[in-house]
Amino acid sequence: MESIGIGIAGFGTVGSGVYKNLEKNGSLLRERTGASFSVRKVAVKNPGKKREVELPAGVVTPDWRDLVADPEIRVVVELMGGVEEPLQLFREAILAGKIVVTGNKALLAEHGHEIFQLANSKNVPLFYEAAVAGGIPIIQAVRHAFVGNRIESMQGILNGTSNYILTRMQDTGMDFAPALAEAQELGYAEADPALDINGWDAAHKAIILASLAYGKWIPSSQVYVQGIEGVTAYDIRFADMLGYKIKLIASIRAHEDGRIAVRVCPTLIPHEHVLASVSGVFNAIWLRGDVVGESLFYGRGAGQDPTSSSVIADLAQAAAVLGRGGNDRGFAAHDLYGDCLPMAESLSPYYLRLAVEDRPGVLAQIAGILANHDIGIASVMQSQGLIDGKLPLILMLHQARHGKMQEALAEISSLRCVLAEPRLFHVEPTKKV
Amino acid sequence: MESIGIGIAGFGTVGSGVYKNLEKNGSLLRERTGASFSVRKVAVKNPGKKREVELPAGVVTPDWRDLVADPEIRVVVELMGGVEEPLQLFREAILAGKIVVTGNKALLAEHGHEIFQLANSKNVPLFYEAAVAGGIPIIQAVRHAFVGNRIESMQGILNGTSNYILTRMQDTGMDFAPALAEAQELGYAEADPALDINGWDAAHKAIILASLAYGKWIPSSQVYVQGIEGVTAYDIRFADMLGYKIKLIASIRAHEDGRIAVRVCPTLIPHEHVLASVSGVFNAIWLRGDVVGESLFYGRGAGQDPTSSSVIADLAQAAAVLGRGGNDRGFAAHDLYGDCLPMAESLSPYYLRLAVEDRPGVLAQIAGILANHDIGIASVMQSQGLIDGKLPLILMLHQARHGKMQEALAEISSLRCVLAEPRLFHVEPTKKV
Repeated sequence: MESIGIGIAGFGTVGSGVYKNLEKNGSLLRERTGASFSVRKVAVKNPGKKREVELPAGVVTPDWRDLVADPEIRVVVELMGGVEEPLQLFREAILAGKIVVTGNKALLAEHGHEIFQLANSKNVPLFYEAAVAGGIPIIQAVRHAFVGNRIESMQGILNGTSNYILTRMQDTGMDFAPALAEAQELGYAEADPALDINGWDAAHKAIILASLAYGKWIPSSQVYVQGIEGVTAYDIRFADMLGYKIKLIASIRAHEDGRIAVRVCPTLIPHEHVLASVSGVFNAIWLRGDVVGESLFYGRGAGQDPTSSSVIADLAQAAAVLGRGGNDRGFAAHDLYGDCLPMAESLSPYYLRLAVEDRPGVLAQIAGILANHDIGIASVMQSQGLIDGKLPLILMLHQARHGKMQEALAEISSLRCVLAEPRLFHVEPTKKV
Repeated sequence: MESIGIGIAGFGTVGSGVYKNLEKNGSLLRERTGASFSVRKVAVKNPGKKREVELPAGVVTPDWRDLVADPEIRVVVELMGGVEEPLQLFREAILAGKIVVTGNKALLAEHGHEIFQLANSKNVPLFYEAAVAGGIPIIQAVRHAFVGNRIESMQGILNGTSNYILTRMQDTGMDFAPALAEAQELGYAEADPALDINGWDAAHKAIILASLAYGKWIPSSQVYVQGIEGVTAYDIRFADMLGYKIKLIASIRAHEDGRIAVRVCPTLIPHEHVLASVSGVFNAIWLRGDVVGESLFYGRGAGQDPTSSSVIADLAQAAAVLGRGGNDRGFAAHDLYGDCLPMAESLSPYYLRLAVEDRPGVLAQIAGILANHDIGIASVMQSQGLIDGKLPLILMLHQARHGKMQEALAEISSLRCVLAEPRLFHVEPTKKV
């Protein structure tokens, strides 16, 4: 019975969860996989700090380099947070031939290309199931279960905080600010919720999913990201009347010409679609493969235990690799789809909410601009009654290119009868882009 | 670039789908995994028959033993259907050291114990993702992604035909017989739909899931199986009024004392539970692990392409094993949970529909019998108006042991005021059994 030395860098919520659950289910893991793990070192910023989970004497170190330097440590679990420090750890650990397991989505999204190049050149496997959607095994699914599929598209609810906020707005009619405050009180949003709210946490995860599906690391500068700060209680209500819920959707799609479109934005999802029923802090990923058809994965996207479950699954994979001598071809990077699709060229139906003057001729002006840009109107809804003296006008638009849509929107915004900043949201599921 | 010789036994819907999709996405698979496959032999019952997918000359054989005898065939894909013939194939292929991939749920449910004993003794890996829920990668999920979890329970919609019938009954109010006829017309139910309707197809899959979660092959004689033939349009309507949908649920649960309870039966699921939104021919599996919490997998449970996707994923796994020399410890069988829980001891809340005389004192008699058996009543609903001259009386019952429930039911059935066979359905999700 082989015991594998591991080092944990970072002992916050997830790090201590991994330690605790390895203790709890260690014998189960041993029976199932034949491997056991011994945590030889844990690197923490502040070794003197009192912790929820106690560590044996001699295990704690203030320096992650001690983990890399320990020849008995075969696997380093990186759960420090941040980007620069973990990047340095990855470089040194890979050069030292150690398998690295991580949940660090920002690191992989920003430096995945460099990290995997180095890891491939050294034949060192990396595992990162915890980096996308916590306890949902979407990375294993794309790498292994759907290996025989061209992935046509994925739409994910990848950020529990924003989904909680949107769910509360939907269920109670409350506006964004109080829903965010409630999420913070309940511990579902951090004191600084910026990355959750502005869409970038989900965007990092979308970049990782796209890399798995299409073998390319997409520069984050090419990803279109729109947060949920601009979603109002009115939008939620109007969307509901039209048969939709508003969700923060990360959308990854292969264009017919091979280019990939990745975007994260508030999106109208029809009530009857399974993604619309994903409530609260839960995450879900909807996937279409050319062989398997539609598939959905649903579960907890964050939290100590769900994330630990994924880290431990990765440790089991690392143990299997070590058990057969350390070499693993695995699922190789491939390059089938070519370049990233510029957002301006991506196609989507849209929801457009305007606040306009309540007088004849307004709709004609707006419809004229849309027609000039070849954008078709699917339906028009006028609210009963004014809001702040303005008439809400909601237009559901047929599929249009984002670039054309932005041009039309600029013209519409500059009309004298348009009294406030327009709200434009995508609608899914769409046809192929 | 290694090309792996494979043989396909059985060339019906799934067999020809595997062949077709290997052709279609072969280069993708090669780029991703480094392996390519060449189909050297296909065993069919009637070699002269005209087929949708054409095979090269020299590939077709009437005898699966030709596949086993061919030293260039490293993997045999068993998709023949039936049990006795495939069992013989498994025995001979394993003895010949060939990896076997199958989608045969009945075979594994009935003979899994023997087959895996033989395969383990010969160190031959077997793969069977296609045997449970078509394109949903639940077997990989339990074996790998949730390897660090004690599986507390799984509830699955594992039969698309019966889910289609129940969905149509729900959506249109039609009764069982016309819904079944419609499913047959659309090709969702076979000419002989017995195994789909009577619950046994789902039960075979439940036995396989239980074996993965708990390391035990449960004899099919110990599984409680109730089909959907007894579900009427009235039950669907009454359940709906109470806030539930009726689904054919395969339930697998670990008892606190370590024993496992496996049952398949029509079950009331609350409208707000994700499983209630699984409609038509789709399948889904709800899983609770002690670390990951709740998780759901959803997708197509049958059909040529989804099932092929799983077979091809298994072929990729087989290729990985062969690529590293053929030995694979994998996820070992374990034996943590002990014996199977007799159905009489299993706990569940219940839905009980009676047809009674419309006179005072009837409810008192029935409530008295339930009280004598310590079964609590959660709510009582009386329909407005008689059905066939009988008064429908629906009781939602608190959690009770199945044995006690059956005793009470026998007494209730024998009352003179009870005018027809009672309908008793389980309610999920329940607390721990």
